Amino acid sequence: MEILKDNKPKHGGRLNLKRTLNDETGRQQRLSQIENLCGESLKSFHFSPVSAESLKGNIENFIGSVHIPVGLAGPLKFNFSESQEEVYAPLATSEGALVSSVVRGALSLTMSGGVTTRVLSNRMIRAPQFEFSNVDESIAFCRWVQNHFETLKKKTNDHSSHAVLLELDTKVFGKTAHIRFVYSTGDAAGQNMTTFVTAGLCKWILEHFPIQKGIEIRDFLIEGNLSSDKRASALSAIDGRSRSVVAEAVMQRQVLKKILRLTPEEMVSRFSRSKSSRIFTGQIGYNINVSNAIAALFLATGQDMACVHECSVGEFHIEQQGEDLYVCLYMPCLIVGTVGGGSRLTSAQDCLRMMDCLGNGKADRLAQIIAGFALALEMSTVSAIGSGDFVQAHQRLGR
Amino acid sequence: MEILKDNKPKHGGRLNLKRTLNDETGRQQRLSQIENLCGESLKSFHFSPVSAESLKGNIENFIGSVHIPVGLAGPLKFNFSESQEEVYAPLATSEGALVSSVVRGALSLTMSGGVTTRVLSNRMIRAPQFEFSNVDESIAFCRWVQNHFETLKKKTNDHSSHAVLLELDTKVFGKTAHIRFVYSTGDAAGQNMTTFVTAGLCKWILEHFPIQKGIEIRDFLIEGNLSSDKRASALSAIDGRSRSVVAEAVMQRQVLKKILRLTPEEMVSRFSRSKSSRIFTGQIGYNINVSNAIAALFLATGQDMACVHECSVGEFHIEQQGEDLYVCLYMPCLIVGTVGGGSRLTSAQDCLRMMDCLGNGKADRLAQIIAGFALALEMSTVSAIGSGDFVQAHQRLGR
Amino acid sequence: MEILKDNKPKHGGRLNLKRTLNDETGRQQRLSQIENLCGESLKSFHFSPVSAESLKGNIENFIGSVHIPVGLAGPLKFNFSESQEEVYAPLATSEGALVSSVVRGALSLTMSGGVTTRVLSNRMIRAPQFEFSNVDESIAFCRWVQNHFETLKKKTNDHSSHAVLLELDTKVFGKTAHIRFVYSTGDAAGQNMTTFVTAGLCKWILEHFPIQKGIEIRDFLIEGNLSSDKRASALSAIDGRSRSVVAEAVMQRQVLKKILRLTPEEMVSRFSRSKSSRIFTGQIGYNINVSNAIAALFLATGQDMACVHECSVGEFHIEQQGEDLYVCLYMPCLIVGTVGGGSRLTSAQDCLRMMDCLGNGKADRLAQIIAGFALALEMSTVSAIGSGDFVQAHQRLGR
Amino acid sequence: MEILKDNKPKHGGRLNLKRTLNDETGRQQRLSQIENLCGESLKSFHFSPVSAESLKGNIENFIGSVHIPVGLAGPLKFNFSESQEEVYAPLATSEGALVSSVVRGALSLTMSGGVTTRVLSNRMIRAPQFEFSNVDESIAFCRWVQNHFETLKKKTNDHSSHAVLLELDTKVFGKTAHIRFVYSTGDAAGQNMTTFVTAGLCKWILEHFPIQKGIEIRDFLIEGNLSSDKRASALSAIDGRSRSVVAEAVMQRQVLKKILRLTPEEMVSRFSRSKSSRIFTGQIGYNINVSNAIAALFLATGQDMACVHECSVGEFHIEQQGEDLYVCLYMPCLIVGTVGGGSRLTSAQDCLRMMDCLGNGKADRLAQIIAGFALALEMSTVSAIGSGDFVQAHQRLGR
Repeated sequence: MEILKDNKPKHGGRLNLKRTLNDETGRQQRLSQIENLCGESLKSFHFSPVSAESLKGNIENFIGSVHIPVGLAGPLKFNFSESQEEVYAPLATSEGALVSSVVRGALSLTMSGGVTTRVLSNRMIRAPQFEFSNVDESIAFCRWVQNHFETLKKKTNDHSSHAVLLELDTKVFGKTAHIRFVYSTGDAAGQNMTTFVTAGLCKWILEHFPIQKGIEIRDFLIEGNLSSDKRASALSAIDGRSRSVVAEAVMQRQVLKKILRLTPEEMVSRFSRSKSSRIFTGQIGYNINVSNAIAALFLATGQDMACVHECSVGEFHIEQQGEDLYVCLYMPCLIVGTVGGGSRLTSAQDCLRMMDCLGNGKADRLAQIIAGFALALEMSTVSAIGSGDFVQAHQRLGR
Repeated sequence: MEILKDNKPKHGGRLNLKRTLNDETGRQQRLSQIENLCGESLKSFHFSPVSAESLKGNIENFIGSVHIPVGLAGPLKFNFSESQEEVYAPLATSEGALVSSVVRGALSLTMSGGVTTRVLSNRMIRAPQFEFSNVDESIAFCRWVQNHFETLKKKTNDHSSHAVLLELDTKVFGKTAHIRFVYSTGDAAGQNMTTFVTAGLCKWILEHFPIQKGIEIRDFLIEGNLSSDKRASALSAIDGRSRSVVAEAVMQRQVLKKILRLTPEEMVSRFSRSKSSRIFTGQIGYNINVSNAIAALFLATGQDMACVHECSVGEFHIEQQGEDLYVCLYMPCLIVGTVGGGSRLTSAQDCLRMMDCLGNGKADRLAQIIAGFALALEMSTVSAIGSGDFVQAHQRLGR
Repeated sequence: MEILKDNKPKHGGRLNLKRTLNDETGRQQRLSQIENLCGESLKSFHFSPVSAESLKGNIENFIGSVHIPVGLAGPLKFNFSESQEEVYAPLATSEGALVSSVVRGALSLTMSGGVTTRVLSNRMIRAPQFEFSNVDESIAFCRWVQNHFETLKKKTNDHSSHAVLLELDTKVFGKTAHIRFVYSTGDAAGQNMTTFVTAGLCKWILEHFPIQKGIEIRDFLIEGNLSSDKRASALSAIDGRSRSVVAEAVMQRQVLKKILRLTPEEMVSRFSRSKSSRIFTGQIGYNINVSNAIAALFLATGQDMACVHECSVGEFHIEQQGEDLYVCLYMPCLIVGTVGGGSRLTSAQDCLRMMDCLGNGKADRLAQIIAGFALALEMSTVSAIGSGDFVQAHQRLGR
Repeated sequence: MEILKDNKPKHGGRLNLKRTLNDETGRQQRLSQIENLCGESLKSFHFSPVSAESLKGNIENFIGSVHIPVGLAGPLKFNFSESQEEVYAPLATSEGALVSSVVRGALSLTMSGGVTTRVLSNRMIRAPQFEFSNVDESIAFCRWVQNHFETLKKKTNDHSSHAVLLELDTKVFGKTAHIRFVYSTGDAAGQNMTTFVTAGLCKWILEHFPIQKGIEIRDFLIEGNLSSDKRASALSAIDGRSRSVVAEAVMQRQVLKKILRLTPEEMVSRFSRSKSSRIFTGQIGYNINVSNAIAALFLATGQDMACVHECSVGEFHIEQQGEDLYVCLYMPCLIVGTVGGGSRLTSAQDCLRMMDCLGNGKADRLAQIIAGFALALEMSTVSAIGSGDFVQAHQRLGR
């Protein structure tokens, strides 16, 4: 590969990574070189439970795998649109107390009748940037693109059988025009899919707009950073990115008191009071620790772990409802796939199987299960903090 | 464990998780039950490369491990304070093209003379919340706590041999007082350590303040959500959380053109133009995709993956410097540990060994290496987007 | 007025405000009482250049006026869509150096060929909140409302001859549904207009939805805080609120050097460098001091001064363009009216007249003029800071 | 003035503003010219209640004044640290219903025992930016500056008799160093004062640092945008800017029901529910409409109206307290002056006199009064929205 041709040993300390060898031999060679270089035997890498050949499209310069322990949490009763089910979830984590905490929260939700989850929208986004001579040209361009929505929607089929163009959102910043292409992407997370499709659509735009309107496109970037891909943002919190999911439940007073050791009144006063701390933190969304649940479930199911950054934005809300407690977690941007990407890893496939989430037609289910377990963890943690159990649980389990 | 006593089978669909069995027998029993429940053979879990016994403190309800492929990236030349070194980094990821992209960016930095990294600060935070009758009492409380800083600093030793109390930051919100306890935590990430220490210090405060000042503390939470633990926030971006690290480099014009295919002028105009998109996204910090590098290095080295959410905040900056390009990445909150937590996993230990980052005295080094590789990825991605290589690379490697 | 009936003197220190007297007699009585109470002669209020009777709908408990000095700035050449004009603007301010600074910036823009301004959108928003029993009901409600967009659009005419319903944006947060009603409001700022219209439309919704769908609306608020009315927000920065305006110009190198004392290269390196400070401030949008221009022009022209908070969000961008400097200011939420509200004040009418901005059909023009002068101030201030003139100018003019 | 020399008539449409004439003659000449240009008689400007000569330091190119009506609101009972008082406030506004709403809220607070207000801190900030060759130099610079805090604190006296240097906060962004100089500024708002003092201190730094450390300072800006001057920001919300003020009260159930027409339970459930809308708006701080109160009181008392942008950030909180309602408003950045700036305007002086807030030693009082009245308005508006009075009140008073 041309751009890597300088990546050859120039002195004793450099490895010869031979990236072209995507097989066990290549893996062994690379591993042995890095062992020599660092002067250590890297025993956990000697045996690879995963074959190099099976990882095409997932990794380059493969040297072996890290093994992350998985704990089983549940049952958590889900009230889906079509069915009610108790679900167990595999949580991949090395943080002691996390699985126990989720189990406790799930128990409290299940005993109260379960969690209701719904997918509100599904929007994956790619946002190229176009450069013109002045603002009138960028306005003209945005209008033209908007007027060609139906054409672009049809052309999407030329590039993908899964992506559906839902919306074109245009932003003019002086002579620069940003177009947010919003797609549904079936059961794939869809970042790559939308990149390729958008590149294809932009090729068509770059050809046809200048001819039709006589305006030169002076520069073009496939992404002007407006998709907010890989970055937590107010935009994604507001508009949603990938799946927006809501999880709600009515926690029974007796269950709260028995399992979570607080009354609804105590929960409300303590939590709402802490919520005012938001002016001192400036966070996007408010929750206690949804990132813990997101990370553990993403890791188990082969999701892109970089997305933990953007996907862990969520708003957690509680309020008294009669004698009981209404609780709600809104997750605006859960980027999950049950096909493609890391979901092809064999251990990820097994974790998806455990929850009946593997393959086509399952991404909505997976997103809802993640949101439900995230709510379970929120309930457990917020009550542990409120009741004083938090410190003890971590001393017992997390040291 | 009392709170789990209801977690027994109530009907056929429920597992008997027997959480007390933290051994291979328990693991097999749980695995076999979930296989029965989901009706699938979960083959990747049958053999566990990690023993249940070794995972005490890292997981509950252990059923096996997921295996995430690791690719080797580098060399990247680091100009540390004390030495210059070429470093190879293990990236755990299932996202194709990521390792290649980091390799390309690292090459461009290395050929330009390497990346200079520095740790600017090291602050782990726990922030309890205290409730009083009115604002005068909460003000009096904050003053009293501030006046006892030296006492509290000494008492920190009673609870930890690693934590050092650096600062007490008090926030009054009416009758509620928040105290941010800021610690250095040696080479541990330190979230649990600071929880235990702060709990100990608060015990002392809860006893002594009411007696000395005659003011009742009406409520107390070990965390009022002001530590911003597990949540990306403007506060952590501004003040830093755990290690704040800067990585800078001067990219030579010839290297830029040859490896990254753009001139400094092209980089500056395209990147700065896209930067104005920030008003349309409302993100905290600005960068292209540091979360990719953070996630891959955190996962390889056993860091808490939930922290990818808060740790992936960063500000990436480029400017022309004479004929060349000055580049800088500021990562305000890199929470890493080279002892404790997930760094005890055997595969994590091997990954840390590869970079000479295992054990005491190595956390600063690890944080800097992560920031350096994150900058390498930024350079590669921003230039790939700018030069049009982005789509092709993902089509070639990431499908 | 019933709710004020307790507002009678209960002891010597209380005034008898007699709110019903909206005439000069009432004004004199109130003034004389407050003079007695504070024991001072409030001379500047003795003569009122504005009659109490003329202020119906603008003030209650009228006691007189404050007089804010107005300075004339310009000329600034505008390249509007339809014409090119040099405009002078009245700036109401007590901050020395502000008018001079705007004059300097306007001169530099005018000598460079003027500023191009365009209104990109016009959206005033009111966002009621509806409460249901569970998320399925709130989803059903949002769908029903969306399906009745055309009906609601027609019904808008029953309540206002100016408001046009452009869009309904629905947000589901568990059992709570928020509907953002987006209107164009002609030449009025439109906050009150959209309140009344939305109240009317909601009345219809509250009657018809329960009957048609058999779902009870358990609670209703005319505003659930999602309009972001009176509050600076990422939402308004992203989506726009009232008029979104862009102002751009190409500053000639020679003009920059002569008038603003910096080269394009110096401007770019200094400004882009400071822009990275954004990670340390967490502000919405980035600019130097547009609030100065907004406040002075809003005050002169009778705009709602509370809107200075939300309207002063803006993104200022500069980049080298050949030998010259391209500059752009994006103001996403300029809430202005040339009819109604404070534009009815006689001095405001004169200020609007000076710019040919009074009355129907003029709000787009006013918004553009404000954005243009805000850009002029940005250019002056950023260059004054960059060239070292900033301190001296304030010492000379602002003490 | 040199930079304005091109501001002479170049064609018929240009004015000859003759800025040097800071007297009535000059005013008349400018006014007459603009009347000729726009072809209108600007009658409200013919008579000026304020003399041109008295406005030196407040305005350039003076042509007259705008007259903004003032309504009297109150009484509001304040529980200051040292005294209890009922206060009436002059609100300058053209927005109908605002004064009435404040009166209603003030009544409810007063009948409940009044509002308790406290100033928590007082910090005005100027933040110069220094440029070096690399990050090691900028780190060395920040350390050196920190080590010279006492010296710089003493030198502050050479430049101002009011400013006191409280803190130096340093931020390293690669080769760029930002220093936040934090001062108390007595009873002046202090933006200009801190500019001049900081310029003086930087002159000393620019001379002494290079000599002492042998490191060249390659560039210097008096402001690198880190003071957040004139811009609403998370930083100012977190750290405070100028005066941070808290206002709290316990609203009695009977008063709430009678005056504000809601029970504490209704207030809590409706308000806390709407608070979750924050994830959809991304605003800094949460409140209903404090900007209305800030703008009206700032305008009456001669404050810098551009500061309405940054000063209107606030966090409003309510919670049930037994049978009653605890309410709290935190205003982190109230920038007010009772000497200097616009407080010298004669009508501003009268408004300050009404509240016993004129002159030295009064800025803390003014800041507290503003926060108290802002809380009164919050109570009135949130309850009007909650009880359905909001629409009616605006229809009655604000059309």
